[in-house]
Amino acid sequence: MTHTDSASPAPAAEIETEDHVALGEDYALTASFVEKVVDAADDGDGMRLRGLLEDLHPADVADLMGFLTSEHRAVVVQWLPPELLADTLPELDDGIREEVLERVPHLTLAEALQELDSDDAAAVVEDLEDDQREKVLAAMPEGDRAAIESSLGYPEDSAGRLMQREVMAAPLFWNVGDTIDHVRRQGEDLPELFFDIYVVDPLNRPVGGVAISRLLRAPRETPLSELMQPVNAIDVDVDQEEVAYIFEKYNLISAPVVDTGGRLVGQLTVDDIVHIIQEENREDILRLAGVSDEDRASGVFEIVRGRVPWLGINLFTAVLGAGVIAFFEGTIEQIVALAVLMPIVSAIGGNAGTQALAVTVRALATRELTSSNAVRTFWREMMVGLVNGLVLSPLIGLAAGVWFQDWRLGAVIATAMILNLLVAATVGVLTPLTLSKLKFDPAVSSAVFVTATTDFFGFLIFLGLATIVLL
Amino acid sequence: MTHTDSASPAPAAEIETEDHVALGEDYALTASFVEKVVDAADDGDGMRLRGLLEDLHPADVADLMGFLTSEHRAVVVQWLPPELLADTLPELDDGIREEVLERVPHLTLAEALQELDSDDAAAVVEDLEDDQREKVLAAMPEGDRAAIESSLGYPEDSAGRLMQREVMAAPLFWNVGDTIDHVRRQGEDLPELFFDIYVVDPLNRPVGGVAISRLLRAPRETPLSELMQPVNAIDVDVDQEEVAYIFEKYNLISAPVVDTGGRLVGQLTVDDIVHIIQEENREDILRLAGVSDEDRASGVFEIVRGRVPWLGINLFTAVLGAGVIAFFEGTIEQIVALAVLMPIVSAIGGNAGTQALAVTVRALATRELTSSNAVRTFWREMMVGLVNGLVLSPLIGLAAGVWFQDWRLGAVIATAMILNLLVAATVGVLTPLTLSKLKFDPAVSSAVFVTATTDFFGFLIFLGLATIVLL
Repeated sequence: MTHTDSASPAPAAEIETEDHVALGEDYALTASFVEKVVDAADDGDGMRLRGLLEDLHPADVADLMGFLTSEHRAVVVQWLPPELLADTLPELDDGIREEVLERVPHLTLAEALQELDSDDAAAVVEDLEDDQREKVLAAMPEGDRAAIESSLGYPEDSAGRLMQREVMAAPLFWNVGDTIDHVRRQGEDLPELFFDIYVVDPLNRPVGGVAISRLLRAPRETPLSELMQPVNAIDVDVDQEEVAYIFEKYNLISAPVVDTGGRLVGQLTVDDIVHIIQEENREDILRLAGVSDEDRASGVFEIVRGRVPWLGINLFTAVLGAGVIAFFEGTIEQIVALAVLMPIVSAIGGNAGTQALAVTVRALATRELTSSNAVRTFWREMMVGLVNGLVLSPLIGLAAGVWFQDWRLGAVIATAMILNLLVAATVGVLTPLTLSKLKFDPAVSSAVFVTATTDFFGFLIFLGLATIVLL
Repeated sequence: MTHTDSASPAPAAEIETEDHVALGEDYALTASFVEKVVDAADDGDGMRLRGLLEDLHPADVADLMGFLTSEHRAVVVQWLPPELLADTLPELDDGIREEVLERVPHLTLAEALQELDSDDAAAVVEDLEDDQREKVLAAMPEGDRAAIESSLGYPEDSAGRLMQREVMAAPLFWNVGDTIDHVRRQGEDLPELFFDIYVVDPLNRPVGGVAISRLLRAPRETPLSELMQPVNAIDVDVDQEEVAYIFEKYNLISAPVVDTGGRLVGQLTVDDIVHIIQEENREDILRLAGVSDEDRASGVFEIVRGRVPWLGINLFTAVLGAGVIAFFEGTIEQIVALAVLMPIVSAIGGNAGTQALAVTVRALATRELTSSNAVRTFWREMMVGLVNGLVLSPLIGLAAGVWFQDWRLGAVIATAMILNLLVAATVGVLTPLTLSKLKFDPAVSSAVFVTATTDFFGFLIFLGLATIVLL
């Protein structure tokens, strides 16, 4: 994201400079402001639009875009001041960005991209159609183009793709004074904002880092080698999820990125990491529910494409469950009460399985669950399942017994529930564990599989027991 | 979190300085290292323990604690070097921290806390038992005690509680040179690390901020008033979720915290925010699944206490669903096939409802869903439900028709599925929307309610239609 934001217009400022309140108490755009923009867009009143938009923070413009229809976005883009457009592009949802980019003339775009740090520029260029991409790159100065092209050379979601190439490096033999003087001279070529100075050896390999607040504190003659602390150098090919984990675990503000030779090639800063963390968490929540990625700009059919496959799988597994019930049709014909009660057994099982699943997926994501404690975690969940069962089964057993005036029926459902809760614990823990051992995302479709299993065994155990005990 | 970490020992360093590899490729502790620690703890071999631990990063020590049993933690704590213990405390899970704190003598603790920034110290003290808290505070120097006590005076999870009181402020009339000289003199009283200098007016109200990398770039005689940019001042009583949203939206690295009079009282830094974001996301995932907060150190009964209430509610709602089925007992007696097929209708409905729910909860969390687009979002989900239904219902209709040689039965289940998918979309969107309108957490127990509703209506619609059409 553009570092220029790191000190950003307070909403208060906007409120003063505008005849309206753009942001509510909760820092979200107010409905009334969005309406004002929509009206202005409908009237094609460019001047009013510009008046409404020019004082907005790029993040708020990006937000606004999300609330507009595609038609309105088209109008708004025309009237965005160029430099505001530039800062807004990296903040947009991918879907919306692709749409907006198609509407921006490639020369305007080439202009805009030069304003951005290399990581942000690359993030934008990667969303361009091939032909447009060529035009835009062709229209950019050699240096900027090279930076963007090489960063697009790294795999998507890798440190190399995310890093910004502008970085403040200092040779090992410099002291505080040398460094400050260098910064004053080189100002322009340095990153817009930086937080650590990386100390490099003659081969340009980072050997340490100095937080600039420490640099400021030290007398001019202090050698950097005295101030520097060890740094976590990140390889260009490390995946963004990994990067996010390292930043969070060690509370990093920035980290140097090194090539295969260990040479300094760029840096990652925490503000970019925050967005990655949100993205990864969003994926986890949606995947658990069986939703492939979609954003607020996705159309109905796009969304269906992402969801219907999981529902289809669920349909198939549900038919398997139905098969189990069909197998016991004879039993049900004699005791219809079983048809009434069986969904209870499967429902509780599914719910308990989902609980175990969510906890396990989360623990895997935070590395709290590894081979060191997998077995202990599994047994703990089994115990939890057992205790849950011992708490709940008397209730349902009693209820069923009273309802149908049949104590044996009550005993059957109580037993079935305990057993199915053990199934739930097993599948809830083992499914994500297995997926991650196989290097798959443990969240993907786990929920569908877990509930399918608890349904299947819920019916099997309950109807099976009933057949044995009651007939 | 302790800022000392922001340049932290690279795992590489640890690997060299130790005769073992503590961290794996993925930056998580290796099982073999954890075993080594467990063995040393079992043998009560303090020297070996210290050897294993002393070069670990505090975050890794905290991680290690999570993998150990309570007994082993007790031994490890005894042998942690005091300053490492101090830096580790803020990194521990709450549950584990409380346990560890009971084992640390209050004088050692008072010593340790003085090493920490006020926010970290307060986070630790808040977990102490009242009597221990008094002892520890009494053993601390006046200044530190006052800082901790006043920060504990703010509500939990508020900016005031999270902020660190050490902050670098400069009067409006200073220039770059004055500021740098001040930092060199005052070094000790300033935060360990800081990223922005807050420019304050004579009433100590922040009027702007200067990123220190900008300060470094500018000539000594440049007045701060020329360099400063607007800042997002955050009120002491703002909730942490709000704070996280502001930091993420505006890509902030740090922000000044102000009291009700708008006076500068402290600062928040992004590394703390990263942990809050993870915490909030963790809560969302777990609450969606009906799990009240629990961590890896929680015992079986603690976990059950957090989960069994949701299962109990689910049990109750499942009984309601059973009531619906019981109402149609007569129909089922005549057509047992209905008992076989009805779980399919409810399962798909529950799954689709969960999809809509997850998307809505997420959109609310990121403020992508507000009153400006609630209606549009709702209709989009209804359309998605309809299209999903039109895709899936022919499949199940055909399957059921063939299976039971009854085309009318196939038509009934196909129709029921479409209708239940519309129910799923409705409840999946409206449940979280309503909860958040009522200022509740939209994630809490939503899933239980959504699946309960889709079960209920799934049975009602399917069996109702069957009774009308097939009898």
